[in-house]
Amino acid sequence: MHYFSDNATPVSPAVMAAIAAADCADHGYDGDAWSARLDGAFSALFDTSVHALWIATGTAANSIALACLCPPYGGVICHEDAHIVVDECGAPGFFTHGATLMPLPGEGAKLTPDVVADRLKTIRPDVHQVPARAISITNATEYGLAYSPDDVAALGDLARTHGLGFHMDGARFANAVAHLGCAPADVTWRAGVDALSFGCVKNGGMIGEALLFFGEQAAARAAEAQRWRKRSGHLFSKGRYLAAQILAMVEGDLWLANARAANAAAQALAGGATGRLLHPVQANELFIRLSADEAAILRAQGFDFYDWGDDAARLVTNWSQDAASVAPLAQALRALPDG
Amino acid sequence: MHYFSDNATPVSPAVMAAIAAADCADHGYDGDAWSARLDGAFSALFDTSVHALWIATGTAANSIALACLCPPYGGVICHEDAHIVVDECGAPGFFTHGATLMPLPGEGAKLTPDVVADRLKTIRPDVHQVPARAISITNATEYGLAYSPDDVAALGDLARTHGLGFHMDGARFANAVAHLGCAPADVTWRAGVDALSFGCVKNGGMIGEALLFFGEQAAARAAEAQRWRKRSGHLFSKGRYLAAQILAMVEGDLWLANARAANAAAQALAGGATGRLLHPVQANELFIRLSADEAAILRAQGFDFYDWGDDAARLVTNWSQDAASVAPLAQALRALPDG
Amino acid sequence: MHYFSDNATPVSPAVMAAIAAADCADHGYDGDAWSARLDGAFSALFDTSVHALWIATGTAANSIALACLCPPYGGVICHEDAHIVVDECGAPGFFTHGATLMPLPGEGAKLTPDVVADRLKTIRPDVHQVPARAISITNATEYGLAYSPDDVAALGDLARTHGLGFHMDGARFANAVAHLGCAPADVTWRAGVDALSFGCVKNGGMIGEALLFFGEQAAARAAEAQRWRKRSGHLFSKGRYLAAQILAMVEGDLWLANARAANAAAQALAGGATGRLLHPVQANELFIRLSADEAAILRAQGFDFYDWGDDAARLVTNWSQDAASVAPLAQALRALPDG
Amino acid sequence: MHYFSDNATPVSPAVMAAIAAADCADHGYDGDAWSARLDGAFSALFDTSVHALWIATGTAANSIALACLCPPYGGVICHEDAHIVVDECGAPGFFTHGATLMPLPGEGAKLTPDVVADRLKTIRPDVHQVPARAISITNATEYGLAYSPDDVAALGDLARTHGLGFHMDGARFANAVAHLGCAPADVTWRAGVDALSFGCVKNGGMIGEALLFFGEQAAARAAEAQRWRKRSGHLFSKGRYLAAQILAMVEGDLWLANARAANAAAQALAGGATGRLLHPVQANELFIRLSADEAAILRAQGFDFYDWGDDAARLVTNWSQDAASVAPLAQALRALPDG
Repeated sequence: MHYFSDNATPVSPAVMAAIAAADCADHGYDGDAWSARLDGAFSALFDTSVHALWIATGTAANSIALACLCPPYGGVICHEDAHIVVDECGAPGFFTHGATLMPLPGEGAKLTPDVVADRLKTIRPDVHQVPARAISITNATEYGLAYSPDDVAALGDLARTHGLGFHMDGARFANAVAHLGCAPADVTWRAGVDALSFGCVKNGGMIGEALLFFGEQAAARAAEAQRWRKRSGHLFSKGRYLAAQILAMVEGDLWLANARAANAAAQALAGGATGRLLHPVQANELFIRLSADEAAILRAQGFDFYDWGDDAARLVTNWSQDAASVAPLAQALRALPDG
Repeated sequence: MHYFSDNATPVSPAVMAAIAAADCADHGYDGDAWSARLDGAFSALFDTSVHALWIATGTAANSIALACLCPPYGGVICHEDAHIVVDECGAPGFFTHGATLMPLPGEGAKLTPDVVADRLKTIRPDVHQVPARAISITNATEYGLAYSPDDVAALGDLARTHGLGFHMDGARFANAVAHLGCAPADVTWRAGVDALSFGCVKNGGMIGEALLFFGEQAAARAAEAQRWRKRSGHLFSKGRYLAAQILAMVEGDLWLANARAANAAAQALAGGATGRLLHPVQANELFIRLSADEAAILRAQGFDFYDWGDDAARLVTNWSQDAASVAPLAQALRALPDG
Repeated sequence: MHYFSDNATPVSPAVMAAIAAADCADHGYDGDAWSARLDGAFSALFDTSVHALWIATGTAANSIALACLCPPYGGVICHEDAHIVVDECGAPGFFTHGATLMPLPGEGAKLTPDVVADRLKTIRPDVHQVPARAISITNATEYGLAYSPDDVAALGDLARTHGLGFHMDGARFANAVAHLGCAPADVTWRAGVDALSFGCVKNGGMIGEALLFFGEQAAARAAEAQRWRKRSGHLFSKGRYLAAQILAMVEGDLWLANARAANAAAQALAGGATGRLLHPVQANELFIRLSADEAAILRAQGFDFYDWGDDAARLVTNWSQDAASVAPLAQALRALPDG
Repeated sequence: MHYFSDNATPVSPAVMAAIAAADCADHGYDGDAWSARLDGAFSALFDTSVHALWIATGTAANSIALACLCPPYGGVICHEDAHIVVDECGAPGFFTHGATLMPLPGEGAKLTPDVVADRLKTIRPDVHQVPARAISITNATEYGLAYSPDDVAALGDLARTHGLGFHMDGARFANAVAHLGCAPADVTWRAGVDALSFGCVKNGGMIGEALLFFGEQAAARAAEAQRWRKRSGHLFSKGRYLAAQILAMVEGDLWLANARAANAAAQALAGGATGRLLHPVQANELFIRLSADEAAILRAQGFDFYDWGDDAARLVTNWSQDAASVAPLAQALRALPDG
C-alpha cells in the first residue's frame, strides 16, 4: 500500500458521478449551469458573499491569487518551506511578473506573528527595497499542522495593519477544518484572509481547484483573476466538468467527510508511531523518524512512501482510507525492532 | 439544436471510458503509466520520434510552444484572425514575456508565403526593431480552411531560410487531416513544422490537449516546455486522467473518426447553404450569409448559432453529429425564402 | 553636413554649463537639490501641479508611462508607425509585462478619433479579448506633424469616455509646441493627456528625458513610476546630472528656443523642396521624394541623410542649426535637375 | 565632510574632460567612434577578447548580465546581503522574467564554496524545483571585502561543474583590484567569471557602467545583452557621452588610481578606528562599532555618514580623497572617549 501522496489516489465516486452527470451539451468556458452555481455554493459554505473561480491546479490558484494581491515590485511574506517557495518552479514569480518571495523560518512550516513583524521592520520604505505587499500561509501546513482561527487572526491583524493582502494556500484546507472543528469562515475571512486556494484534488477530486475571494475587494479581484485565468491558459473550453467536481465536494459534506477519513487514518498511523513523530499530526501527513533499515523492513511488507532526508520519512493518508484500512501499517510501525 | 461551438458538446464515450479506466492509484503529475505512453503513441501516429506533453488547454499549448520558439524580444508572424491574436487575451505575450505578435492579412485566415516574405523584408536587422523568430499558423484555420502539405511546406521553407521556428495551432488538426486525407506527418514535420498543438477537446475530449515537438531540437524544447508547464500551473497532480483521454483519441482511430463525422455534418449543411458560403467548407465550420430575418426563421425552428457580424452566421458541427443528424438544419437552410 | 537625426548633435552649451555647475557632492539618486526642483519647474511650465521624474531615455519614459496606465492583459491604441511600435524592440511589452499594442493607420502617423472609435467597437467585452486600456500618440509625430490642441482633445474625449489612460510621446514635444504656438498645457492635460514623455536629448540635452504625470492620479502614478524606474535599472546614482540638464532646458526658454531654431531650419529646407514634400513640415523633419540619382548629387556636395525606402529621403534638422546654416542644402535641393 | 556614499561625489576631472571632448556630432546610439573602442580597451585591460557594452547603471548591468545567464525558471545563487537582493527593488526578477534569487549567508557578504555546494545539494532535479543556473558575487563585497583570485576560482570551479553561469557585480571592482594587486584577468575570466559589471560611477564617473562578457559565449551573450539593453530603454541616443567616460577610466590608469586613493583614505580611517572594525577594511568602506553618543560627537565636528543599525556606522571613502584629506576624521575617531 502506497503512502506517497494524496494526489496518487483515485477519484471519489461521488465526483465521478458528478462528472458523468455533467456530460451533456452546455455553453463553453464558464458560461455553463454548473459554473454559475459556484459563487452560491461557496457563499453558503463560508457564510458570506464569496466570489469563486475554478482553476486547473493548486499552483495556478496560489499564483493567480498572489498576482491579484501583490504588484511585480512587491514581496510576499511566506514560510521557507511553503509549497509556493519550494515546489512550484517559480510559478508565483511568473504570474506576478517577478514579485519577490520573502521566506521566513518557523516550526512545522507555520509562520508566527513575531517572525513576520520582525521581517517587516527590516524593510526600508525607499524605492531600493522590495516592499512587502502580501502574506501567504498554508493551512494545513506542508508539515501537516493546522493554523487555528486565532493563529490566522493574529497574522490577519498584522496584514491589515501593514496594508498587506492575505492569502491562504488551502491545498489541504479540508483536512485543517476537519481537525479544527471550526466553521470555515472562522479560519478564513473572519480572521482576515482575502483569498483562499480551496483544494479539491488531494481530497478526492480529479481535476480542478477553487480560488475564492472574500471581502470588499472580492468582486474586483475575481474579475482580475478571470483575466489571469484566461491569459495563463487556464480557462477550459468545457469548464462544466471542473465546476461539477467542485460542487460535488461542497454542496454537500463530501469535502469534510473525505478529509475526516484521511485524518482518521493519519491518527491511526500516529498511534503506531509514538515516539517517532517529528511534528504533531493534525491533518493527513506524518513525518516520522525512520532509519534506512526500518524503512526497508516496512517496504519489505509492501508499504511504500517517500524518504524525507536521512532517517526520516513522510507518510500521507487520503480520503479513500480510514483507521481500519491503515491498521496494517500502524501495526508494522509498532512492530519495528526499536519502535 | 445548437451549432455554437464544438466545445459545447459532451465527451466522446470512448474518452469517458478511458477516464474511468484510469481511475486508480498511480504516481502523481506525469509519472504515471498513461503519461509514459504519450511519446510512443504520437511517434507512431506521426511516423517519427515525437516528444509529447499533455497540456490543459489549447491556449496554453499554443503559448508554451511559442515560448519555446521565440525569445521575449522576438516576433511571431501570424494571421490577423488567428486565435492567438484575437481570442487568448494576450496569453502568448504572457508566456513569451512580451514577444510581439506580427499579424498579417490573408483570405480565409490563411497565411501565404508572399505576404510573409514581404513582411520579413520590412524588418531592419538592428536592435531597434523586433526580429521575427517564429511563424504560427492554424490548421484548420479559424475560417475552416485547411492548409495542404504544399501550403505548409512553402511556409516551412520560408521559416527554415529565415531561421524561424514554425508552430501549428491544431485545435482542429483532426478536421484538417480528415479533409486532406494525407498522413499527419505530411502536413507537419515533413513540411517543416517544429511544434504542434494537437487538439482533443473540440474533437470529443473532456480536458487536455497535446503539445508535440518534432525534429532535432524536439527533446530540448520538450524539456523546456515541461518547465513552462509546471511554472504556469499546468502540471496537474493527476495527469493520468488527461493522458488517458489523449491516448483514447490517438492510439486508435477515434480522433479521425470523430473529425470525419463533424466534417461530414458540415458538408451536409454546406449542401443546404449553396450560394451562402463565405468560405469554402473544408473542416467543421461554416460561415454563411444570413440576414437577421433569416436567422430568426431558423431560430424559430429550434436551431441556434452565433451571428458573425451583420448578415452572417457561424455554424460549427461536432463529433457527435453526422450528415443525417444535421439534415433538418440543412433542409431549413434550403427552405429559406431567398435561399 | 549631416541630417541623419537630431540625436547625432552635440549638447546645447547651456546644458553643458548646467552639468558643470552640478559637479559637486550631493545626495545620491534623486535626493539632490536639482531633482527636488523638477516638480516645481514643470508645474510652472504647464500651469498645473505636475509630478516629474528624470528618466534615462525616451524609450524608457514611454514604457514606464504605459506600465502605469495599462495592465499586462490590456491594450494600447497607437499608430502603426509609432516609435513604440517600430523602434523600441518591444520595450512597451517588456515594461507592461506583455500588454498588447494595437496599431492603427492614419495619415502622417496621426491617429484620428474615427479610426480609434472604430477599433474600440471591434473589441468584445469578454475575457477572451484584450481590452483597450490606453491611447498613446506622438507629438510631433514620427512624420513631423503636430497634433493641435483640438486634435488632442478629440482623442482625450474618447479616452475619457472609454476609461483609457492617455499618453503622449513628446520626444519632439518642443518642436510641436514651437510650431503650434500654444501653451504647453493646451496640448496636454487640458486636452486630456495623463502622462507625457518630455523630450530633451533630441533638443540639445546629453542624457535624460522627463516623464510627467498630470491630473488627479498624478501622485499615485508617479509613485508607481518611481518603482518602475528603480526596478528597471534607471535610477542613476548621480541623478543630479540629469536633473540639471532638464532644468537648464525648462527653467528658462531654452527648450523652446532650440526647437524654434530646428523648426526654422526645417522650414528653410522645405522652401527648397517645394513639390517634393511627402508630408507637411511642422516640426524638424522633412520627408521628401528623392531619386537615387538626386540623392547621389546631394551626397557628392557633402550632405548626408537617411534614405526612406525607394525614391525618398528623411532630413532632420536640429537645435544647432537655423535657416542660414541650412541654406546650402536648401539651395542644393532647389538646384536639382528635376526639382 | 560626508562619508555617505561614493555615489555622492563629483566627477573625476579627466572624465569631465572626456565628456567635453566627445561633445560633437557623431552617429547615434552606439554607432559612434567612442563606443567602437570599448571592446578593444577592455580586451587590452583584461588580456583576452572581451565584449563590452556601456550600460546606464550598475543595477541594469547586473540584471542584464543575469538575464543572459539564467532562464526565467532558473535560480541565481548569491549572498543574502548582495546588492541584487537588498537594494535593487527586484530588478533581477524584472529582467530575468521572474528568476529566483537564492540568498545564502557568509561572513562579510562573501560566498564560500562550502555554503554554495551545500545549497546545490538541496535542489531536486525535478520540474517542481527551481534549478540553480547562475552564481553572482560582488567584488569588493557590500561589506568592503575582496575576493582573491583563489576565492573566485573556487566558486568558478563549482560553477563549471554544475553548469552555472558566473557573474561578478563589480560596482567596486577597481577597489578590489587595487587592494589585491592582481591582474584584472586573474580575478575574473581566469577564475571562471563569465560576465562582469564593471563599475565606473562610484569611482569617478558621471553616468554609465560597463558590462563585460568573457569566454566562448561572450559574443552571443553580448548580442543578446544588446537586445535587452534596447528593450529595457537603456540604449541612449547619444551613447558617445557614456563611452567617452568609460574610456577615460580604462584606456589609462585612472580607474586604478582613483580606487587607490579611495582605498588609502579608507586605510587611514581604519587606522583611527582600531578595535572598532566590524569587518576587515580591504576596499573603500568601513563598518565600525559606534554608539549613538559617539556618532553625535563626530557629527558635531562636521562629519556625516549613515548609521548601520544600532551602535554601528558605515563610512565610505571615494576617489576624491586620500589619507591626508581624511586625517581629521581619523583623528576624531581616535579621540573618541572610549576609542
